[in-house]
Amino acid sequence: GFAKVDHHRKKRQGFPEVIFGEGKTSTHIIDISRAMMAKNENILVTRVNKEKVKKVRKELPDFEYHEIANLLFMKNSTDTPQFQGYIAIVCAGTSDLSVAEEAALTAEAYGVEVRRYYDVGVAGIHRLLAHIDEIRQATVTVVIAGMEGALPSVVGGLVSHPVIAVPTSVGYGANFQGLSALLTMLNSCASGISVVNIDNGFGGGYNAVLIHRLANQK
Amino acid sequence: GFAKVDHHRKKRQGFPEVIFGEGKTSTHIIDISRAMMAKNENILVTRVNKEKVKKVRKELPDFEYHEIANLLFMKNSTDTPQFQGYIAIVCAGTSDLSVAEEAALTAEAYGVEVRRYYDVGVAGIHRLLAHIDEIRQATVTVVIAGMEGALPSVVGGLVSHPVIAVPTSVGYGANFQGLSALLTMLNSCASGISVVNIDNGFGGGYNAVLIHRLANQK
Amino acid sequence: GFAKVDHHRKKRQGFPEVIFGEGKTSTHIIDISRAMMAKNENILVTRVNKEKVKKVRKELPDFEYHEIANLLFMKNSTDTPQFQGYIAIVCAGTSDLSVAEEAALTAEAYGVEVRRYYDVGVAGIHRLLAHIDEIRQATVTVVIAGMEGALPSVVGGLVSHPVIAVPTSVGYGANFQGLSALLTMLNSCASGISVVNIDNGFGGGYNAVLIHRLANQK
Amino acid sequence: GFAKVDHHRKKRQGFPEVIFGEGKTSTHIIDISRAMMAKNENILVTRVNKEKVKKVRKELPDFEYHEIANLLFMKNSTDTPQFQGYIAIVCAGTSDLSVAEEAALTAEAYGVEVRRYYDVGVAGIHRLLAHIDEIRQATVTVVIAGMEGALPSVVGGLVSHPVIAVPTSVGYGANFQGLSALLTMLNSCASGISVVNIDNGFGGGYNAVLIHRLANQK
Amino acid sequence: GFAKVDHHRKKRQGFPEVIFGEGKTSTHIIDISRAMMAKNENILVTRVNKEKVKKVRKELPDFEYHEIANLLFMKNSTDTPQFQGYIAIVCAGTSDLSVAEEAALTAEAYGVEVRRYYDVGVAGIHRLLAHIDEIRQATVTVVIAGMEGALPSVVGGLVSHPVIAVPTSVGYGANFQGLSALLTMLNSCASGISVVNIDNGFGGGYNAVLIHRLANQK
Amino acid sequence: GFAKVDHHRKKRQGFPEVIFGEGKTSTHIIDISRAMMAKNENILVTRVNKEKVKKVRKELPDFEYHEIANLLFMKNSTDTPQFQGYIAIVCAGTSDLSVAEEAALTAEAYGVEVRRYYDVGVAGIHRLLAHIDEIRQATVTVVIAGMEGALPSVVGGLVSHPVIAVPTSVGYGANFQGLSALLTMLNSCASGISVVNIDNGFGGGYNAVLIHRLANQK
Amino acid sequence: GFAKVDHHRKKRQGFPEVIFGEGKTSTHIIDISRAMMAKNENILVTRVNKEKVKKVRKELPDFEYHEIANLLFMKNSTDTPQFQGYIAIVCAGTSDLSVAEEAALTAEAYGVEVRRYYDVGVAGIHRLLAHIDEIRQATVTVVIAGMEGALPSVVGGLVSHPVIAVPTSVGYGANFQGLSALLTMLNSCASGISVVNIDNGFGGGYNAVLIHRLANQK
Amino acid sequence: GFAKVDHHRKKRQGFPEVIFGEGKTSTHIIDISRAMMAKNENILVTRVNKEKVKKVRKELPDFEYHEIANLLFMKNSTDTPQFQGYIAIVCAGTSDLSVAEEAALTAEAYGVEVRRYYDVGVAGIHRLLAHIDEIRQATVTVVIAGMEGALPSVVGGLVSHPVIAVPTSVGYGANFQGLSALLTMLNSCASGISVVNIDNGFGGGYNAVLIHRLANQK
Ligand SMILES: Nc1ncnc2c1ncn2[C@@H]1O[C@H](COP(=O)(O)O)[C@@H](O)[C@H]1O
Ligand SMILES: Nc1ncnc2c1ncn2[C@@H]1O[C@H](COP(=O)(O)O)[C@@H](O)[C@H]1O
Ligand SMILES: Nc1ncnc2c1ncn2[C@@H]1O[C@H](COP(=O)(O)O)[C@@H](O)[C@H]1O
Ligand SMILES: Nc1ncnc2c1ncn2[C@@H]1O[C@H](COP(=O)(O)O)[C@@H](O)[C@H]1O
Ligand SMILES: [Mg+2]
Ligand SMILES: [Mg+2]
Ligand SMILES: [Mg+2]
Ligand SMILES: [Mg+2]
Ligand SMILES: [Mg+2]
Ligand SMILES: [Mg+2]
Ligand SMILES: [Mg+2]
Ligand SMILES: [Mg+2]
Repeated sequence: GFAKVDHHRKKRQGFPEVIFGEGKTSTHIIDISRAMMAKNENILVTRVNKEKVKKVRKELPDFEYHEIANLLFMKNSTDTPQFQGYIAIVCAGTSDLSVAEEAALTAEAYGVEVRRYYDVGVAGIHRLLAHIDEIRQATVTVVIAGMEGALPSVVGGLVSHPVIAVPTSVGYGANFQGLSALLTMLNSCASGISVVNIDNGFGGGYNAVLIHRLANQK
Repeated sequence: GFAKVDHHRKKRQGFPEVIFGEGKTSTHIIDISRAMMAKNENILVTRVNKEKVKKVRKELPDFEYHEIANLLFMKNSTDTPQFQGYIAIVCAGTSDLSVAEEAALTAEAYGVEVRRYYDVGVAGIHRLLAHIDEIRQATVTVVIAGMEGALPSVVGGLVSHPVIAVPTSVGYGANFQGLSALLTMLNSCASGISVVNIDNGFGGGYNAVLIHRLANQK
Repeated sequence: GFAKVDHHRKKRQGFPEVIFGEGKTSTHIIDISRAMMAKNENILVTRVNKEKVKKVRKELPDFEYHEIANLLFMKNSTDTPQFQGYIAIVCAGTSDLSVAEEAALTAEAYGVEVRRYYDVGVAGIHRLLAHIDEIRQATVTVVIAGMEGALPSVVGGLVSHPVIAVPTSVGYGANFQGLSALLTMLNSCASGISVVNIDNGFGGGYNAVLIHRLANQK
Repeated sequence: GFAKVDHHRKKRQGFPEVIFGEGKTSTHIIDISRAMMAKNENILVTRVNKEKVKKVRKELPDFEYHEIANLLFMKNSTDTPQFQGYIAIVCAGTSDLSVAEEAALTAEAYGVEVRRYYDVGVAGIHRLLAHIDEIRQATVTVVIAGMEGALPSVVGGLVSHPVIAVPTSVGYGANFQGLSALLTMLNSCASGISVVNIDNGFGGGYNAVLIHRLANQK
Repeated sequence: GFAKVDHHRKKRQGFPEVIFGEGKTSTHIIDISRAMMAKNENILVTRVNKEKVKKVRKELPDFEYHEIANLLFMKNSTDTPQFQGYIAIVCAGTSDLSVAEEAALTAEAYGVEVRRYYDVGVAGIHRLLAHIDEIRQATVTVVIAGMEGALPSVVGGLVSHPVIAVPTSVGYGANFQGLSALLTMLNSCASGISVVNIDNGFGGGYNAVLIHRLANQK
Repeated sequence: GFAKVDHHRKKRQGFPEVIFGEGKTSTHIIDISRAMMAKNENILVTRVNKEKVKKVRKELPDFEYHEIANLLFMKNSTDTPQFQGYIAIVCAGTSDLSVAEEAALTAEAYGVEVRRYYDVGVAGIHRLLAHIDEIRQATVTVVIAGMEGALPSVVGGLVSHPVIAVPTSVGYGANFQGLSALLTMLNSCASGISVVNIDNGFGGGYNAVLIHRLANQK
Repeated sequence: GFAKVDHHRKKRQGFPEVIFGEGKTSTHIIDISRAMMAKNENILVTRVNKEKVKKVRKELPDFEYHEIANLLFMKNSTDTPQFQGYIAIVCAGTSDLSVAEEAALTAEAYGVEVRRYYDVGVAGIHRLLAHIDEIRQATVTVVIAGMEGALPSVVGGLVSHPVIAVPTSVGYGANFQGLSALLTMLNSCASGISVVNIDNGFGGGYNAVLIHRLANQK
Repeated sequence: GFAKVDHHRKKRQGFPEVIFGEGKTSTHIIDISRAMMAKNENILVTRVNKEKVKKVRKELPDFEYHEIANLLFMKNSTDTPQFQGYIAIVCAGTSDLSVAEEAALTAEAYGVEVRRYYDVGVAGIHRLLAHIDEIRQATVTVVIAGMEGALPSVVGGLVSHPVIAVPTSVGYGANFQGLSALLTMLNSCASGISVVNIDNGFGGGYNAVLIHRLANQK
């Protein structure tokens, strides 16, 4: 077939390849999934729409579907890592839920405990401050925000661990589909913040997992 | 001459025309100033560089020069308004001083009391919180910030009066000469924020004066 | 639940939180509304589409729906402020009606009298001049314009109170979904103009309310 | 030589080639000029800086230099056209003078009468209205404006002949070196406006000449 | 009603207002049309879609509909101007037809003779050269092109009358919805070219009419 | 009719005109095809959608339809060139298939042998290295990639023949519909890479054919 | 004074505030430094130019100056952390040295061992592969690249720890001052990559330190 | 040292590495050059300024300096390839000379015969047509153009071999430092055109050499 699944990746990176569902037909997704099932690899498919999900689950009913995060997950491997501690996932508004859950579910798929702090945007900063002590105890925080995307700067100034910032396309007008939040995060005057692509909840969760694993390693 | 000074503006708007110094020769500035002196109008010249200042003050030594804000001021009118209360000028970092002072000096030129809260950016939010009660008592707040420009959103969520946000070009890279801070401010999730051009300290100060005058009017 | 309604905001800012309808499900909107009804807060929901409105009003029939402005309003509080004077809402073309009405209805929801001057764009400037005396008597003017967005500059040069400029996405081609009008307004050579996001009628109205309240305060 | 002067152009288009001075060395300019002098062609060189002018005039002292418009002109041809009527050149602020003069001098170089209306920007619209009757009598109007570039829309709504709009790079911040004025002019809601490149005073003048010639032709 | 039709425009500019159909409801269009019919004005409505056309023509069956150009026209005035000569409309590819016809029909609505030269893009330049003599006899040429938009530069180098360039959004990828063709035309190295908005066939035709009228005037 | 088919092109360039299907009606496509069939020319129609294909094939059933590449092909000419060697088509991910096949089928339509290396993106570079010896034997390689578009730089550093890079719009967020991959390819630090438009598989294939023909010529 | 040094930061985040030298006068830098010296804090000043360095070191000769990285460092604290392992700093070309050294020296200032792998860009991928085993043993890798910025994707596919990507402004033309490399990194198809601002070597180094500290913590 | 010269490249690609002079100190250039001299490799250094040239030639006087093209060349290798035929280098205006010569000298440095056709832009198309027969005989044409960059489309429609298009940053205003010409070339409606970076004369010349070598190979 057309796809060359990177089965070697699990050896090279500790985790198997993840399927980027956008732009793939359901047939493509099924074929790649079957190849991974044959190797007992866990399968995560991101950015799938309902229509594809229907077709894929008809063939492969073992996939769990998380509608709010537009992802499919199938647990095939039995050697789950055992991690201590948790990562924090903080998001600015209820409109960012879909991306926040993509991050959270990605991290949970890799066996990491997640604590969620949602709808705590900077326009009412007391909502964030109410939870800051618990957030400070996490190994790493993923901060998701749309519109002006100011939340990571505030969080970054209050915690001492790394912050992964995820801009979302939530907003309109001069938001330019997330460009505004993206630039905000890249220019943050707080230190210790690094950024992934607009709406890339998967990237936010995955980076957090890599750091969390390191924090557990020694 | 080439310039048509809008002497009528004082009647129409309550304040005389302000001279935009950029792109004018010192000769232009001197000519326009003389015309305004003849009518006993206060003269504010913004965005002048040192070289022009030298030439202008040689002819018109009554101009005060505020180097940090790149502006010239000459008081000619005797009917100064009497206002009560004050406006707050809040800025994120020491690199934003030049724009903050352009705003502050503009407001003072129009007879308004200004209180300054500088270097209180969001990366160390306790610095802002330490002054928030006094800021809340102002009639209007001008917030100046570069880099990611997140400060107006936080201030906007804490005060109940109008906030004028002034993005600055301070920063580098994906800041794109102030575009980042501008977009942040336009997309603010806090209500009650309106925005002026990048580095437009004059506009920030002038809008605050108009609102302050209204708050004093009744 | 996922949402943390900022009930404290009314205390902090004098007005309760407003619900940004875009990107929220009807269930989210209903839940948040119920929490606010329990506190007798007035509820304003902006940027809702017809489909959501249907679902929301089935559960909460007390909501009034303003189709042209895509907003829902429910009056629950009995302590309405009493203001004197009016604000002016000026718009350039009949295509800008939706945004203009979002601004007007927002202001009216907060108890402020609104006078409307619509379809008075700069291509036929006598239409604006015919009303300018009445506009001059307002405490503040909100100017809404799409395409080239030149109207705020002209209005700003004729009145002595603050002007809130709202660019709209009306137009095509090099309009770039409202970017053209936005830049025009940010670069206005008239003083006393500040700007909100593209299509942000709510922001225009809300800023006007804050200023109008100040003008009534003393 | 490297340059292939388009001597044929005068036959094809009625006017000889014009030299774009930017990016050419003074040697290039001298060589091309000599070739044109040999054919008794009038020579217009635009966008030259002082340094080049010095070197060119040392060799070719017959060039007149117009410093404010950065151009050189040498009259060699004796068959000047005889036109009736005039074109109007209108500009918004004193900072736009350089571009306005490039337009005006270009038109005069081709033998067309020019009337200038400078510093009549939209922030004080009475200044334009004071001259509008004379402007209406022109065959064509060139409108030059920087910052938000709103002036052509207003002029376009008041005259019945074609308007050539020339955006300038005057301004700062969200002006983006003239982009703001350019977009404004392209999106004008007034009809009968066409646009040339940012700071292209030459283009404005040249288009006006072509139209003026047509108006004189029959 | 909401709309203020600019009936005065015919007096001021010689032609009545044109209705920009986009963003107006069919009810708006009908109301404005009725107001104009009452004054015996010709009515041109641009950028209407089929659905609106159906509703409008049900009420006002006298409208002629030109589907390819998305416009409606109703002839009510009896004093048609008598012009001599013709304008040329040149377009690059068959995909630009819709915009080209908007220009052509606009000009014809104003009583001007149009000659069409379609599908003569620069990739096969002999197709343009085959018609160039006839094009040269026009008073003015409107050149419509998408993709790279190179055609106006070539035409502009071959004719001696004004060229109005209309970029179209035809293309994909780095075309950025017509930005590519727009920039090409603004930067043309040929003289005598001025530009209107992307896809603004109306503007191209209208400017040509104004120039053609001048050429007929004396 | 409206279209002027460039029949002369085959003489001038060795290959007949190709029909750009986007923005043409099915009637246009049929008319042009008939004109080309009458001259026994091979016909390639790119960027057609299913709906148009249905209508076109109803009239002209000899067209082969390649759904994945959105193109139609009809072989009418009998003089097929005989080439030696092959070109390589390399693509980064399974989501780029549609563009890759547009390139491959274009080349095959011109009689060139194609070898495909798909889903060998840089995140698992061993997949590319596994095939690099065979790729090195090609006369020219077309590299198709979306997202960050890094693959051409890596290939360009490993082969000694020309590389044609085709960016695709696959991706989301800061990908900006292919802009990211386009800029990557234009800035490649590897030498010997030239670039065509985003999603322009046709251009990639056609350029490869021209080079392949040259390599076969002597 | 104007500056409010955030002395509390060391308590809150484990490291003292870092001084952003750009846009500050030498007097500002000296004042802030003195305040920090009084608290025995280590001082790092980034983005200083030679002129400022001269003035600052005249007053505070204990500063070490690293010219290639444009930074000043003064060690005042005695409690240096003791870390095990190292971080890798990988850069694409010799033109990226300045940013790479800013990252490396930042990390070293915080007591972390750094291994450098410079000039190993993707156009000659064997240079990277030659060092990949040692890079794999690092806790975290900072990858610096300009032009097309493809290197982080390749590194990210070969290591199993987090990668911090730093785009540089090295390049020209369609590089747009680093935008090209920035977009490439944000869109990377490799997982485990997060990005900081263009030319932000400090951010790259600082994020690596935070992660390295976590990896040492348990 | 810091640089890892890719000596292996000559084996891999047939030509040694070329030094990108921008952003390298003269010391860097000298060091890399010495390493290459030790292997008898020809050395080409692009984008060097006069100051660096002086320092480099003081140490390495064997370098030839081509001022107009900003490049240094040193011939060390004795095995020069023997090619038949020539490549054409066509440029639009005298302002593009610097980039055109970078392309031409690059090709000549690799032993390829170059024929130059300069100042033949589309505004006077007869200048190109006068040479088109000779251009048609080349194996490949490099077309260099700034401003609107229309020339490659016209050339591409007239020749049957590959065209490499090089946009230059010549122009001003809406040219946006070469973006206009770049987009034009990427969107060309002529087939057989591929594009390199803005001002990348080196890339234009190098790609032509690769193709010319292929045309000579069989
Ligand atoms: N939502 C996502 N956003 C960004 N990258 C992703 C996403 N999902 C998967 N990926 C990456 O894309 C790779 C697969 O690409 P593909 O071969 O096209 O399926 C995965 O291994 C991940 O590194
Ligand atoms: N720094 C500034 N930024 C924006 N607008 C300004 C500034 N200074 C003055 N202005 C405005 O520009 C007008 C004068 O423009 P001019 O006629 O060019 O001097 C003033 O009346 C102000 O409205
Ligand atoms: N297709 C069009 N593109 C640009 N401007 C137009 C177009 N159609 C009409 N107009 C202009 O828009 C004005 C009407 O705007 P409105 O009042 O919104 O209908 C007309 O008088 C014309 O000047
Ligand atoms: N003017 C240029 N524009 C683009 N790429 C170039 C240029 N000059 C050299 N290069 C490429 O850059 C590589 C060298 O990069 P560096 O190691 O930074 O010197 C060379 O091998 C060429 O592939
Ligand atoms: Mg909320
Ligand atoms: Mg500070
Ligand atoms: Mg109207
Ligand atoms: Mg003025
Ligand atoms: Mg065609
Ligand atoms: Mg894959
Ligand atoms: Mg190198
Ligand atoms: Mg020339």
